[in-house]
Amino acid sequence: MAIEKDLTIAKQNMKMVTRTVDLRSDTVTKPSEAMRAAMVNADVDDDVLGADPTAVRFEEEMARTMGKEAALFVPSGTMGNLISVLVHCDVRGSEVILGENSHINIYENGGISTVGGVHSRTVKNNEDGTMDIGLIEAAIRHPEGELYYPTTRLICLENTHANCGGRCISVEYTDEVGELAKKHGLKLHIDGARIFNASIALGVPVHRLVQAADSVSVCLSKGLGAPVGSVIVGSTTFIAKAKRLRKTLGGGMRQIGILCAAALVGLHENVSKLEGDHRKAKTFADGLNQIKGLRVDSSTVETNLVFFDVLKSSNIVVYELCKVLEENGILVMPVSSSSIRIVLHHQISESDVHYTLSSIQQAMIQLKAEQNGK
Amino acid sequence: MAIEKDLTIAKQNMKMVTRTVDLRSDTVTKPSEAMRAAMVNADVDDDVLGADPTAVRFEEEMARTMGKEAALFVPSGTMGNLISVLVHCDVRGSEVILGENSHINIYENGGISTVGGVHSRTVKNNEDGTMDIGLIEAAIRHPEGELYYPTTRLICLENTHANCGGRCISVEYTDEVGELAKKHGLKLHIDGARIFNASIALGVPVHRLVQAADSVSVCLSKGLGAPVGSVIVGSTTFIAKAKRLRKTLGGGMRQIGILCAAALVGLHENVSKLEGDHRKAKTFADGLNQIKGLRVDSSTVETNLVFFDVLKSSNIVVYELCKVLEENGILVMPVSSSSIRIVLHHQISESDVHYTLSSIQQAMIQLKAEQNGK
Amino acid sequence: MAIEKDLTIAKQNMKMVTRTVDLRSDTVTKPSEAMRAAMVNADVDDDVLGADPTAVRFEEEMARTMGKEAALFVPSGTMGNLISVLVHCDVRGSEVILGENSHINIYENGGISTVGGVHSRTVKNNEDGTMDIGLIEAAIRHPEGELYYPTTRLICLENTHANCGGRCISVEYTDEVGELAKKHGLKLHIDGARIFNASIALGVPVHRLVQAADSVSVCLSKGLGAPVGSVIVGSTTFIAKAKRLRKTLGGGMRQIGILCAAALVGLHENVSKLEGDHRKAKTFADGLNQIKGLRVDSSTVETNLVFFDVLKSSNIVVYELCKVLEENGILVMPVSSSSIRIVLHHQISESDVHYTLSSIQQAMIQLKAEQNGK
Amino acid sequence: MAIEKDLTIAKQNMKMVTRTVDLRSDTVTKPSEAMRAAMVNADVDDDVLGADPTAVRFEEEMARTMGKEAALFVPSGTMGNLISVLVHCDVRGSEVILGENSHINIYENGGISTVGGVHSRTVKNNEDGTMDIGLIEAAIRHPEGELYYPTTRLICLENTHANCGGRCISVEYTDEVGELAKKHGLKLHIDGARIFNASIALGVPVHRLVQAADSVSVCLSKGLGAPVGSVIVGSTTFIAKAKRLRKTLGGGMRQIGILCAAALVGLHENVSKLEGDHRKAKTFADGLNQIKGLRVDSSTVETNLVFFDVLKSSNIVVYELCKVLEENGILVMPVSSSSIRIVLHHQISESDVHYTLSSIQQAMIQLKAEQNGK
Repeated sequence: MAIEKDLTIAKQNMKMVTRTVDLRSDTVTKPSEAMRAAMVNADVDDDVLGADPTAVRFEEEMARTMGKEAALFVPSGTMGNLISVLVHCDVRGSEVILGENSHINIYENGGISTVGGVHSRTVKNNEDGTMDIGLIEAAIRHPEGELYYPTTRLICLENTHANCGGRCISVEYTDEVGELAKKHGLKLHIDGARIFNASIALGVPVHRLVQAADSVSVCLSKGLGAPVGSVIVGSTTFIAKAKRLRKTLGGGMRQIGILCAAALVGLHENVSKLEGDHRKAKTFADGLNQIKGLRVDSSTVETNLVFFDVLKSSNIVVYELCKVLEENGILVMPVSSSSIRIVLHHQISESDVHYTLSSIQQAMIQLKAEQNGK
Repeated sequence: MAIEKDLTIAKQNMKMVTRTVDLRSDTVTKPSEAMRAAMVNADVDDDVLGADPTAVRFEEEMARTMGKEAALFVPSGTMGNLISVLVHCDVRGSEVILGENSHINIYENGGISTVGGVHSRTVKNNEDGTMDIGLIEAAIRHPEGELYYPTTRLICLENTHANCGGRCISVEYTDEVGELAKKHGLKLHIDGARIFNASIALGVPVHRLVQAADSVSVCLSKGLGAPVGSVIVGSTTFIAKAKRLRKTLGGGMRQIGILCAAALVGLHENVSKLEGDHRKAKTFADGLNQIKGLRVDSSTVETNLVFFDVLKSSNIVVYELCKVLEENGILVMPVSSSSIRIVLHHQISESDVHYTLSSIQQAMIQLKAEQNGK
Repeated sequence: MAIEKDLTIAKQNMKMVTRTVDLRSDTVTKPSEAMRAAMVNADVDDDVLGADPTAVRFEEEMARTMGKEAALFVPSGTMGNLISVLVHCDVRGSEVILGENSHINIYENGGISTVGGVHSRTVKNNEDGTMDIGLIEAAIRHPEGELYYPTTRLICLENTHANCGGRCISVEYTDEVGELAKKHGLKLHIDGARIFNASIALGVPVHRLVQAADSVSVCLSKGLGAPVGSVIVGSTTFIAKAKRLRKTLGGGMRQIGILCAAALVGLHENVSKLEGDHRKAKTFADGLNQIKGLRVDSSTVETNLVFFDVLKSSNIVVYELCKVLEENGILVMPVSSSSIRIVLHHQISESDVHYTLSSIQQAMIQLKAEQNGK
Repeated sequence: MAIEKDLTIAKQNMKMVTRTVDLRSDTVTKPSEAMRAAMVNADVDDDVLGADPTAVRFEEEMARTMGKEAALFVPSGTMGNLISVLVHCDVRGSEVILGENSHINIYENGGISTVGGVHSRTVKNNEDGTMDIGLIEAAIRHPEGELYYPTTRLICLENTHANCGGRCISVEYTDEVGELAKKHGLKLHIDGARIFNASIALGVPVHRLVQAADSVSVCLSKGLGAPVGSVIVGSTTFIAKAKRLRKTLGGGMRQIGILCAAALVGLHENVSKLEGDHRKAKTFADGLNQIKGLRVDSSTVETNLVFFDVLKSSNIVVYELCKVLEENGILVMPVSSSSIRIVLHHQISESDVHYTLSSIQQAMIQLKAEQNGK
């Protein structure tokens, strides 16, 4: 019985596995030896009463890198976005235009409304993460003379766009939205949690990529590999307001030089590794397309995220596939009843990629065999 | 010169006009003699310290009519919707699912977010004002185990749907959304500003039409013709919470029997007139289709709203058409660069309809002539 | 048995009573014939789409009377205060300084925080309703350079001060607080629900009394006797913002000329009656002091409110006294376990005052008798 | 000239100073060698996607120590308090009773109102940090039947009370407030930023001291010496809600084992050092009383905070004294025009205390001399 034999071999292979490959997110990256060393040696001080010297050093470097006047370390990307939206929308009755699939709209607890009282006006995201300029413009509301419209004060972009496959937003598009914002007296915020991935993939310096933005939030604990934190950048005025709001929300912390020291190492050592992450993602996508029952449009794999479909015809249930993989040390993230997300990062080796592909293939065979065995 | 002659006649015709026809909205209805008489005779008391007897009578009748336990008079439909959403979403971190073209989302200042802190999750409205059940269900979020999702607590429908041409939401669809809400432990609110129009047009008793809803807001100053107010209906518990919130928002008023007396007259005398409004709307639509350069899909004219297009080919600018009409006493509402809304109500006679159609035709001729004259 | 006889007579007297005297508040005033006539004849229009002519007339007269640029009719004093505080504190992170016994702090559901997100900083009220200037100044916070302070943007006064016995705030004190506000770049709002009472009692024109204020809310349904509404006054800019916020809160109403017509009558006919109310209050206070077991400091009775104490030594329970009075048609408001509030207005006659005093005396005797009978 | 000689010597003495003594707060404590070692070796994981093992270990130990079911690491004490208040007051229209001098009311940006929409009801703090039980009870509002009261849901205490001299709240008082809360169906939160100081000073186990509380926030970066963070403890249900809210506010962080490892060291090594801090504070206070022109009531120095007065008679300006001290490496915190706060912690040695006292004395002499020299 060929199938039963397949199943037995597959199970044996899997039994031997002790290796863990965590592909759920690039937030799972752990601090490297160099980061830990930097933390242990960091020069620190109370960043609430005064200023932590390492934080100052980090924030100055970050501002320079992003081409903005100032920067502020924050505990998380969610707080970075929340503060940014709330600073730009500091007057009651503000509305923000953002993509219906954006991280802010979907994955941040609706915080801009529930704690900030900002009204969301969502616009359809195209598959590449952009929104049609015409749709954005149509959504802008100048309430002079009208009593029933909130006031649009902000447009948000996301680059790379997580829910749209980690695709990059071009500098041309960003500039165009920036022009539109300026024309209407609005601000532009970029959720740049993975902006360095976009910069690398597009071959555009990061400061140029965000030139049109009034504020950007950048995650330090994804591809950059730091244990904790994000950073927001913008004008000196913006950062001054952001600092007060960080305190209000409870994000003002004491000896954060510890965390900023790690972030500096991430900035210096890990940005250059992102290109490798993107290459591994391509390899991964190509490998997945070799597995019967799976499919990914390789042309959309622009950075370190791969969303692949489990074809209906395979009769494989996404949740069961994820479970079998998890039992064998491969952690992935189901995102719907037909698709799975995996994320590459510098702590995933080429070998991990091939090992994972082979494990997925084995899992598909095993599940198929179990189905047929019923 | 035929054209110049046309123009001269058109202008002469218009000069003679002294008649005003206000088709901007059915909110422009003025209190009738009967209403004024009811107001002057109303038995009143302090409705904040205790209860105004006429308000009690009105609220009881309204609750009965709508098939709900209780009712509450509120100053406006905006407050009716705001209170309803806020009562159903009284816990921080709530999300409401509503149509992207709904009145609550577009025309109420974003109040549910800006004063209520409720996060909006918008779903695409179909042309008939419904939202696909599948899209609604996909938007529902049960955050157990997830830290980053707000909690969906409410679905809102709008019937008739103002921004979708005043079309009616069927009882079958409403029931289906009600089932969906129940299945997921959510509440259903209906913005029924013009629910009586829907009831009449569908031939379904209004209490049956809103049977699936946990709350409904009904406008008293549109087709019902009262000078001021809306009413919300729901369970006794809902109304008790609504009453507190009405006070918080500043909607608690004193001798409101004055206003409720007028509303009672509207309820008794004007509901039956809505059918005529719908017939006049049909007549209007048919007449507009006879005018070159204008177009309306008559099949979508289900109630008292008519949205008509000024065809590109006509070269007529919507804003200029409205201006000429206004100069001649015809008030309409431009809703985009290519379309105009007119609203019928019981204070617009058949004669007004024909007069307006003729005025529009003349205005088109005049504008055409001016264009050609350039 | 003298006591039993007293009791019998008291009960007989009360049985005969069919008269109702409602002294709970001046909000219980009912629209006069003249008001009802004005309502029935009011020229009205849609005040949301455009402007109601009677509302315009009322608001212009009100602005003139109060010495401010503009005015806005609102459904209630609570909304008037809420809008005023929120307009002055329209930026997130605002703090308002207000008296710990002020109506806004105690009786308005905490709306400025719960819907407006404004932080309250309360200052001790003196017995006369003022707050020490030094305490106000000490409470002002200029957060430049400090990260943990909200920004003080507003000081609120209340005149007359309801919770402090309806006492009047002098023009000198008001001016002084106005100076302080100006010095610190703050705004001054006066909750002038009963500002006409203060104006009359102090003999200072109302516009002079509120000269230092950036905004004032005035109740129309207390001493002025209108059925519904309050009005806020301030600069043109303030009122423009207030109008948007009124819409947001759901206070934008349609044919409000009906209500404004009544308010105009109140303004023209009832301001002059306030002096009589104050005189009746004095009479009432003097009469109460003649009743054994009751006490009121007559020197604090400056307007139409009388707070009197039921002395411990009397052994009379406030709640029981109120109950006996209510059974006999006299409605009063217990405000603590030892004191009762009564409010005079133009629909309470001199005869009502004497009748009520006599009823209170009888009730005291009855309760005393019942006690002794036990 | 004796004075000039004094001045010269004083200046010479100060010139030689290179030592820095930072007495502004115990938040300035820097991570010890042991902490840094713990951080470098910490076992970590993504605490948002799953759970960081060191965080779990820390939170379990903290919950056990505090005698509560569960604990949650948060970025700051401000966030700990904000989350706690917002979880207990999760329904719109909530009011919290708190001391008018409490940290939450004064130093946290009004965040409970500005982002949480919770209304504050402040009660007078006694000199020892307590509030009169009678005043608390009088402030509680049960709004059943009343439409204009917010609903009291929470009482907050602070122990030790920073603004009241770091004084300890007794277990008896805490229990009594707990009883009161229970009786009225309210929750009790303790801002226990320095609760270990109170526990040590009172000789009461910390879990006993907070037994009556539904939640407690504890600072890790004050006396415990950790670089970053606070922790909140409470029931499992409370912590589950707190975890969602932490994410909403942006306090969900990734590999927080780094920070929790340091906090564990603080918990194990530094609690026992607090007694020494208190002893040093006493020494400091006694020393200050030896300096002419300064005064402190030693009996109020119960923990590690010392507030001392610069007597009017000395003619010394607080700000100038602080400046001279700062020039000489002694950092203190002026808290008013007549008083200065200094805070002891484990990185201040006995020698630092004596050195600082001597520096203060010299500074007083110098300032006096300069005055006389003018």
